[in-house]
Amino acid sequence: MESEPVIVIHGGAWAIPDSLVASSLAGVQAAAQAGWKILSSGGSAVDAVEATIVVLENDPTFDAGTGSVLTTDGTVEMDAIIMEGENLNLGAVACLGNVKNPIRVARLVMEKTDHTLLVGQGALEFAKEIGVPTISTESLATPAGWAELERFKTYNKAVRGNFSERQGYGKLSGHDTVGCVALDKRGLLACGTSTGGITGKRCGRVGDSPLVGCGAYADKTAGAVSCTGHGESISKVCLARRILENCEQGIESEEAIQHGLSFMRRRVGNAGGAVCIDRKGNPGIGFNTARMAWAAIVRNKATSGINPGDMICFSE
Amino acid sequence: MESEPVIVIHGGAWAIPDSLVASSLAGVQAAAQAGWKILSSGGSAVDAVEATIVVLENDPTFDAGTGSVLTTDGTVEMDAIIMEGENLNLGAVACLGNVKNPIRVARLVMEKTDHTLLVGQGALEFAKEIGVPTISTESLATPAGWAELERFKTYNKAVRGNFSERQGYGKLSGHDTVGCVALDKRGLLACGTSTGGITGKRCGRVGDSPLVGCGAYADKTAGAVSCTGHGESISKVCLARRILENCEQGIESEEAIQHGLSFMRRRVGNAGGAVCIDRKGNPGIGFNTARMAWAAIVRNKATSGINPGDMICFSE
Repeated sequence: MESEPVIVIHGGAWAIPDSLVASSLAGVQAAAQAGWKILSSGGSAVDAVEATIVVLENDPTFDAGTGSVLTTDGTVEMDAIIMEGENLNLGAVACLGNVKNPIRVARLVMEKTDHTLLVGQGALEFAKEIGVPTISTESLATPAGWAELERFKTYNKAVRGNFSERQGYGKLSGHDTVGCVALDKRGLLACGTSTGGITGKRCGRVGDSPLVGCGAYADKTAGAVSCTGHGESISKVCLARRILENCEQGIESEEAIQHGLSFMRRRVGNAGGAVCIDRKGNPGIGFNTARMAWAAIVRNKATSGINPGDMICFSE
Repeated sequence: MESEPVIVIHGGAWAIPDSLVASSLAGVQAAAQAGWKILSSGGSAVDAVEATIVVLENDPTFDAGTGSVLTTDGTVEMDAIIMEGENLNLGAVACLGNVKNPIRVARLVMEKTDHTLLVGQGALEFAKEIGVPTISTESLATPAGWAELERFKTYNKAVRGNFSERQGYGKLSGHDTVGCVALDKRGLLACGTSTGGITGKRCGRVGDSPLVGCGAYADKTAGAVSCTGHGESISKVCLARRILENCEQGIESEEAIQHGLSFMRRRVGNAGGAVCIDRKGNPGIGFNTARMAWAAIVRNKATSGINPGDMICFSE
């Protein structure tokens, strides 16, 4: 029996400024359409997740791929993960610069190596060996990214010391990771997450996004999830696994997300969001930040939103 | 009320050859004594975990710190994590070369930065900035490590292609990660894991050890755990979190480990081991590999083992 395909995506949970609302909504809608095209024509959940995230990475509105924020050294270091729920196969990259689409490299790690996570220079060498074209940092960063780094440096100089510089500034800046979960007609689940991280991060810093069980997880016995928000906090609570633990206990996907986010706020503070499909195919969207851009297509019905309570229809 | 302190450690779960049995047992016993000295005199679980793992890292018997195995390029890339269960604070490093004790750098990430994981060159730069001395690759690798790399290359040349070279060889080689879990007199839990990884890994490969919820996890509401075994498999099932999920459901620590290892074997194949202390202070040791060197000190009773069923007493 064929499953009803489902796709749910997010463009990051944070205090998205009014100036980015329109482009964020248009971006997640276009990405969901790209993934849906694959799912509705019988394509795989993994293919849909990759294609969707490529659209988001190529959209400079989002902090992933083109549009990634900058490290204190003015470099771009991107993180991504992709995972399928049948055999728990996954591929991930962290601190990878100079490629257009980290999610594609993550998939190549999954399919062409015995490893699950490659980082830094080793990840870039792998990408080159396997024929992924390299591009310049300049083509990944945007004028907005450079301006944000300048604001960070000014803030940092004024109020903070050396190693713990982010603590105050973190609350002011965005964490707009992108992510996708998909269920295909064969009933297979997949998920993916991609990010440029946070402005002014130390070189070598890795947040939750590429970490299995933190930024994403997929398991046919539970569901698929992709998270966004304060990376260190999400890591501390292994948010993706925790949301799916709730699903395993029979909690509906939307409530499973809310429980996970509440647990995170209670134990380590900070906020975030997630998209989820539970093992029965129920989509879930949740965030406890001011805004999160999201889009979902289920049974040919396409909806999206950015403020709490939004339900904006668009063409699938 | 004071808690009874507990420490449980492992020196890696794999087909440990007879030639390494005596030194492995002596090594885990000495490390457990170092941690116990801190716990029994009222020191913290985090201090005990760090001190224990430093002893194991300094012992060339084990694949962590001095004695780390080599990458295909003949470099040493080490991974480590430390975590405390009260506030879920953690610090981790991955693909870090040229320091004697990665676990110390992981602790500095936890205590001196707002980040939880630093990798590669960025991790090394952080270590240097904060005053950690650097050392040469030559002083970390052993003659046995170089010989193992030669064997790997010969094997690889004979039977394997380029990217998936490890698949057959992985079964022949060791994965002797080290790890420690501790409960101190104040009732605080901590855990840590450290490794040099697997012989002939690609540069940039990160296994489970430094990944929160995979190679280690600590949470006062569940327990503390450190894992060892095939890194990619442990990552796919988030083994540390999965063992603690069992503890949260009231399953005893030893059974919680066995359930976790059985799940891993069933879903992704491959074997491993773990040490655990549940929230009530019950120690647990388990492995489904041929051997795992372990040591535990509970109520002044010191025991260790390496073969299934071993219970060797030593002086605490």
